[in-house]
Amino acid sequence: MKFLGGFLLAAAVSLWAALAAAANVEQWGIYEIALQGPADGNPFVDVELSAHFTCGQTAVDARGFYDGVGTYRIRFMPTIQGDWRYQTRSNRAQLDGKTGQFLCDKPAADNHGPVRVAGTFHFAYADGSPFVPIGTTCYGWIHQNAQLQDQTLTTLRSSPFNKIRMCVLPTTAAAIKDDPNACPFARLADGKWDSSRFNVTFFQNLEKRIGQLRDAGVEADVILFHPYGGKDTGFDRMDAASDDRYARYVVARLAACRNVWWSLANEFDLVKQKTDGDWDRLFQIVQQEDPYEHLRSIHFSQRMYDCSKPWVTHLSVQNGMAVADFGRAVWYRDLARKPVVFDEVCYEGDIDRRWGQLAPQEMVLRFWLGTIAGTYVGHGESFKGNDPPAWISAGGTLRGQSPPRIAFLKSILATAPPQGIEPIDRFYETHVGGKSGEYYLLYFGQEKPTQWSFELPSEKLSDGMQFHVDVLDTWNMTVTPVDRQFKLKRLSRYLFGVEGDGKIPLPGRPYMALRITRIAAPASRPTTASSQNSELGD
Amino acid sequence: MKFLGGFLLAAAVSLWAALAAAANVEQWGIYEIALQGPADGNPFVDVELSAHFTCGQTAVDARGFYDGVGTYRIRFMPTIQGDWRYQTRSNRAQLDGKTGQFLCDKPAADNHGPVRVAGTFHFAYADGSPFVPIGTTCYGWIHQNAQLQDQTLTTLRSSPFNKIRMCVLPTTAAAIKDDPNACPFARLADGKWDSSRFNVTFFQNLEKRIGQLRDAGVEADVILFHPYGGKDTGFDRMDAASDDRYARYVVARLAACRNVWWSLANEFDLVKQKTDGDWDRLFQIVQQEDPYEHLRSIHFSQRMYDCSKPWVTHLSVQNGMAVADFGRAVWYRDLARKPVVFDEVCYEGDIDRRWGQLAPQEMVLRFWLGTIAGTYVGHGESFKGNDPPAWISAGGTLRGQSPPRIAFLKSILATAPPQGIEPIDRFYETHVGGKSGEYYLLYFGQEKPTQWSFELPSEKLSDGMQFHVDVLDTWNMTVTPVDRQFKLKRLSRYLFGVEGDGKIPLPGRPYMALRITRIAAPASRPTTASSQNSELGD
Repeated sequence: MKFLGGFLLAAAVSLWAALAAAANVEQWGIYEIALQGPADGNPFVDVELSAHFTCGQTAVDARGFYDGVGTYRIRFMPTIQGDWRYQTRSNRAQLDGKTGQFLCDKPAADNHGPVRVAGTFHFAYADGSPFVPIGTTCYGWIHQNAQLQDQTLTTLRSSPFNKIRMCVLPTTAAAIKDDPNACPFARLADGKWDSSRFNVTFFQNLEKRIGQLRDAGVEADVILFHPYGGKDTGFDRMDAASDDRYARYVVARLAACRNVWWSLANEFDLVKQKTDGDWDRLFQIVQQEDPYEHLRSIHFSQRMYDCSKPWVTHLSVQNGMAVADFGRAVWYRDLARKPVVFDEVCYEGDIDRRWGQLAPQEMVLRFWLGTIAGTYVGHGESFKGNDPPAWISAGGTLRGQSPPRIAFLKSILATAPPQGIEPIDRFYETHVGGKSGEYYLLYFGQEKPTQWSFELPSEKLSDGMQFHVDVLDTWNMTVTPVDRQFKLKRLSRYLFGVEGDGKIPLPGRPYMALRITRIAAPASRPTTASSQNSELGD
Repeated sequence: MKFLGGFLLAAAVSLWAALAAAANVEQWGIYEIALQGPADGNPFVDVELSAHFTCGQTAVDARGFYDGVGTYRIRFMPTIQGDWRYQTRSNRAQLDGKTGQFLCDKPAADNHGPVRVAGTFHFAYADGSPFVPIGTTCYGWIHQNAQLQDQTLTTLRSSPFNKIRMCVLPTTAAAIKDDPNACPFARLADGKWDSSRFNVTFFQNLEKRIGQLRDAGVEADVILFHPYGGKDTGFDRMDAASDDRYARYVVARLAACRNVWWSLANEFDLVKQKTDGDWDRLFQIVQQEDPYEHLRSIHFSQRMYDCSKPWVTHLSVQNGMAVADFGRAVWYRDLARKPVVFDEVCYEGDIDRRWGQLAPQEMVLRFWLGTIAGTYVGHGESFKGNDPPAWISAGGTLRGQSPPRIAFLKSILATAPPQGIEPIDRFYETHVGGKSGEYYLLYFGQEKPTQWSFELPSEKLSDGMQFHVDVLDTWNMTVTPVDRQFKLKRLSRYLFGVEGDGKIPLPGRPYMALRITRIAAPASRPTTASSQNSELGD
């Protein structure tokens, strides 16, 4: 057997790798050890390599990987600042017992570390800054030509999106037919793919792109497996040894990237060749191999994986119906007791599949309905035609009308309580989310009210509290402050209204919302109506 | 300390116990061993007693209990037919090493055994007969006077309800103030309750009532703990030893009753003195002490217990909102992967609490919405006034208009597929449940359609299949067959319509539904239009 392609470019050190190899490294940056070792046999299978990193009482083991033409690398993301030392371990003397040290400095201003679960249902960066996922999906963007990949990045940089779902394995056989470097495996002379040898050129590009996403503030929700094109590529039906080796290799290469999330699969239940036991095993491999505990989930079509299992950090849900009306999404939270991300709620577009023909208004509605239920919603776009291809398949440019409105929602959430939006009264009032007593987003959806009478569920409210109200047009992207303060008065066992006339006129259009913010008591922090208004940024 | 009451009636053998003590016993009946032993000290605490039952290779251990005035009993429910032998074990010589044998016969016609989970989301009796829970709630019916208890049973016998939620512990201090036999614990001379001694008179009555429920075809969903009145009774804040002893005693007395379900608590999250760890422990005690694995759940107010834990057999949900509209309840199923029973969806009534003022139409709507989502809904009634008191508190009589409509639903479900109603197309068509390709219930809720065009999600359908349609008025309780057969024709990728005109006129009223039943192909079973119609029973 003879190998074609895949290794020729391995010696080209990317900017990304060059930066990573600096002797000093910022916290949550990448420290990389490069070593020369054997290139004979099958280094991907034959050579074991890892390093033991220590800083004071903290110790971390990280697996290395073969990067072609005799080069081996170990990548490490220091999670604490200080002097780190390391020693390598290998079953090859050339690679074993190498030692070194480096200093981990404070992170750059835009480096907040990896994203973690926070407050049971939400997310935050490792430094405590809130992370509000505003995701999109481009399954195959990494399998396109370089120009299209660049265009996808340009699009993302001017979009509201801060998370992208993306596959490592190609989603069609066509994607790798003419470009073996779009495939993570090495191609054999007979045209078949060798699951025991990785295509380092593919991975070097993948890492470059994930680094560019990081620099654009975008989390990479890396999908390890999926059912698409599997009949032709065979990648959905590899043997367990190949699956496991592939998972370990991807984790060894990418885990040091702070913006990585692990998505074990897209539509895992359509991968008919794997059992739930296989997914359990793969989850555990990813959990064991990743020293940094990046977020882990799995996405489904019809049948959910048991997300109560301890290695599932959050839910990655396909379900447009759950965010198509009030009072639905919240039950996912209640049952899962983990953050709920509706990664797939159908796509804005006009194709002839019912999952790909959402009107932009409906996409934005779903974002808002998910938000006020204390969950997170992801975007996707699927317009007809191949030039440009659909965003969900290949990236490129966005043609839809929802992204600016999603950006508007993002701007609203940027000043919401950092702990995240919580459902306020799940059993009786489904239109409102926020933080009881402090902050409310009241969404009207497709209703077209001409007025609203101030009325809020009573939790944490008391007579005399004062609130400011902004009228939000979520479609036309306007914030209109109501030029008065509302002073609370109990209406009933369950509700508070206000002193005097509580009516607020509304324009009779759909997709309106209210932002209701408590005005700090004068004693603790002086507040005037004008300072409240100026806070709105419009 | 001196004991008042509670033991005087222990020698009176109830009809229930007399039947149970017969030398032969039917499968899933009760075989009871009665022994005389020490009455001094505190037999509830001091004496350990159990029996080891064997039948061929099957062995079961059952705990005994002290029943007052020197009498000890061990109750056993044989789950297989054949010759059983037993030997007792005790830390008292008088009770130890007693042996005996008995024959377990086939069950009586109305005895289907205990209810189990079936098909992940549904229930069936141990003999395989389907059990479709149509529950109601009378928390404190067992703490009322005998006449009112009798009346509750009379009401239940002519109601559609086949499950009742009921508390062992009194829900108010008033309920036990003048009647110590309404309390499971013994009263001390100072009026306080002794959690280390049980009131056998209370339990003998409880058992009699559970036996009467069994004979009426009603499952007893026995609630072990709750928060109500705890400040006055102290029963929500007993020490762990008392809680555990109480749980063991209840299980020892009741587990042999085939119609018992265990509900660890009502509104467990309002029992502020217990942690989730306490509930875990109590669940495990019930699981270990009950040799028959009766169904186990726990009911909540706002915060759910982690129902993925292995000792939770099904969900017991408080949530009216989840069954107040289409597309909600189904997510509970998807996440829990266990049967979902919405035991509390607010109550039909007119009290000034928002959970107790449902219109009967709304109660019936919630039953239907839960049903087509593949879940189960429970009834409750709370009308103003103390004479009679509210059904949910004390039982007695039913005043509402929902029970006959719930009976109508029950009659519809009696001829539905025995595997239970499944959601058909959770992502796009939320109005229909049933069994794809065979049986559909399409519910319109509060919509008032004047016609419906035959259209079903395509799963398991093919051109030429024939269906019969009945128009159901779920409020007026009528079944009106449509006098034609509908022959399927594919409409689109997702939908089937019919050949010719598929329009069915509807009366423009709310609460209508359609029952759509496949007509068996003539080749396999000859079917005429008239035989289809006669099948409807109206």
